[in-house]
Amino acid sequence: MDMQTSFLDRLFESGLLIDTGVDGLYGRSGQFEDVISGFERLIGQYGGADGAEAMRFPPGMNRALFEKSGYMKSFPQLAGTVHSFCGSELDHMSLLQCIDAGEEWTKGQEATDIVLTPAACYPLYPTVAKRGPLPNAGALFDLQSYCFRHEPSKDPARQQLFRMREYVCMGTEDHVTAFRQLWMDRGVEMMSKLGLDVVIDVANDPFFGRAGKMMVNNQRDQNLKFELLIPVTSSAKPTACMSFNYHQDSFGQKWGLALEDGSVAHTACVGFGLERIALALFAHHGLEVETWPIAVREALWA
Amino acid sequence: MDMQTSFLDRLFESGLLIDTGVDGLYGRSGQFEDVISGFERLIGQYGGADGAEAMRFPPGMNRALFEKSGYMKSFPQLAGTVHSFCGSELDHMSLLQCIDAGEEWTKGQEATDIVLTPAACYPLYPTVAKRGPLPNAGALFDLQSYCFRHEPSKDPARQQLFRMREYVCMGTEDHVTAFRQLWMDRGVEMMSKLGLDVVIDVANDPFFGRAGKMMVNNQRDQNLKFELLIPVTSSAKPTACMSFNYHQDSFGQKWGLALEDGSVAHTACVGFGLERIALALFAHHGLEVETWPIAVREALWA
Repeated sequence: MDMQTSFLDRLFESGLLIDTGVDGLYGRSGQFEDVISGFERLIGQYGGADGAEAMRFPPGMNRALFEKSGYMKSFPQLAGTVHSFCGSELDHMSLLQCIDAGEEWTKGQEATDIVLTPAACYPLYPTVAKRGPLPNAGALFDLQSYCFRHEPSKDPARQQLFRMREYVCMGTEDHVTAFRQLWMDRGVEMMSKLGLDVVIDVANDPFFGRAGKMMVNNQRDQNLKFELLIPVTSSAKPTACMSFNYHQDSFGQKWGLALEDGSVAHTACVGFGLERIALALFAHHGLEVETWPIAVREALWA
Repeated sequence: MDMQTSFLDRLFESGLLIDTGVDGLYGRSGQFEDVISGFERLIGQYGGADGAEAMRFPPGMNRALFEKSGYMKSFPQLAGTVHSFCGSELDHMSLLQCIDAGEEWTKGQEATDIVLTPAACYPLYPTVAKRGPLPNAGALFDLQSYCFRHEPSKDPARQQLFRMREYVCMGTEDHVTAFRQLWMDRGVEMMSKLGLDVVIDVANDPFFGRAGKMMVNNQRDQNLKFELLIPVTSSAKPTACMSFNYHQDSFGQKWGLALEDGSVAHTACVGFGLERIALALFAHHGLEVETWPIAVREALWA
């Protein structure tokens, strides 16, 4: 049994995660949730005074905006579209017969206007663009939502439905790259308070197919994405628990985000993988929160 | 313009809800979220000492368990199945051509093992059944999750993705019906603290088709479902903000929930529609939280 499976089994046995029968889809215990809310409090201690505007989007977003985002170009394999039954009573009867016979019944489901949110900030850009020009001094947003990625796995740190907390900064290149650097420094300090060993490294997204390889190279060569890595199930392959992304003006161009001076806004976002950070804490300090070092408990809950 | 649209427009203008371009799919402001978390605190003041086991499931559930639940029999029109792209690089190219041409591209999406959670308690029953027999004295669970119902609407109180908080009780008939009565009394008292006028009435679910009419009659005749109604967009048609459901032993039979004495468990659940309650507060006390009566503010945040 590999390390990932054995950690997942221990999480199930302790009740911290709840097996649903689908890899990467888990319930959480109250204790697990307390760790997440404690960590979100800690985020607030670092970022709360920055004056970000809080918005909370549901776990689904507008399909038309999702199409425009280009997500299906880069990560088609990860996306989740939401489909519903739109048929008649007769259709319904044959659907039920399919289910009763254990046959495939989902073919007749029709795509709705909703897709699952792939990252907490996706619904933000078109929302902000509709408001008109941004102040030259920039703008800052605080987001959190459940996100979906279709990548079933026995690694508890790779879930299909998980929460991402994000700060998104819009403004000039200098402004948003300084924001990104600030959170790299803060991220290291926060994890150090929690007794977690971290490394920050340049990173890339899992772009699809051969054409995607070029996007990987471009992203790495230009230092557009960094990740804060913490060992969870493996010291050799630590898990990305935060990411720090500089989009240049690509989202500004795509969504029509302009500053008051008429220039295209640059954007950057900083994301926390909340389940991954909780799992890093459980992996490092043990499954019994009561036995965690006092300094860690105080950082989360004092 | 009807009352529902006008209230929705006012919510958009105030920023409390954020238009995403899809009816029933909205972002929430930080202020809106503070009202929800304040109300959840109030729930805890009433129910916290009951010793419920907290579990938090993500907004999607295991499709096989969803099929077994019978939801597609009763409410096929409301369910949302999650589909993903599982094709080759060639398939991907034609998919992108469809999107670029503004054509239907979702036909090739394949159903995953996940469906959107229709009610917070759906993942609970199979989870508890796997643990083995329940104590004769019963068991109590505390749940909350985003839920999906495919019913696009301009009524802000009828959203496609919304949060439901639930307590679920399992035990003997006497035990679970007493639990349901307790929460009907508590619900009335809680809403009175919040300055909201309520009515409790017998209710029924929107069962699909002609066969569904019999299920409606059965549910009403046996007083299986009650709702706590509060005027939101209409005094004549107040909105169901809580529901109180007695399932008899139907879930016990379906999922194999037994007490230690060998009898089949009866179950009941009490659900809070968190967005609806927040909207009732905004409709009744105004969109500016600062101007709400002090007693209401204290009940939520003191």
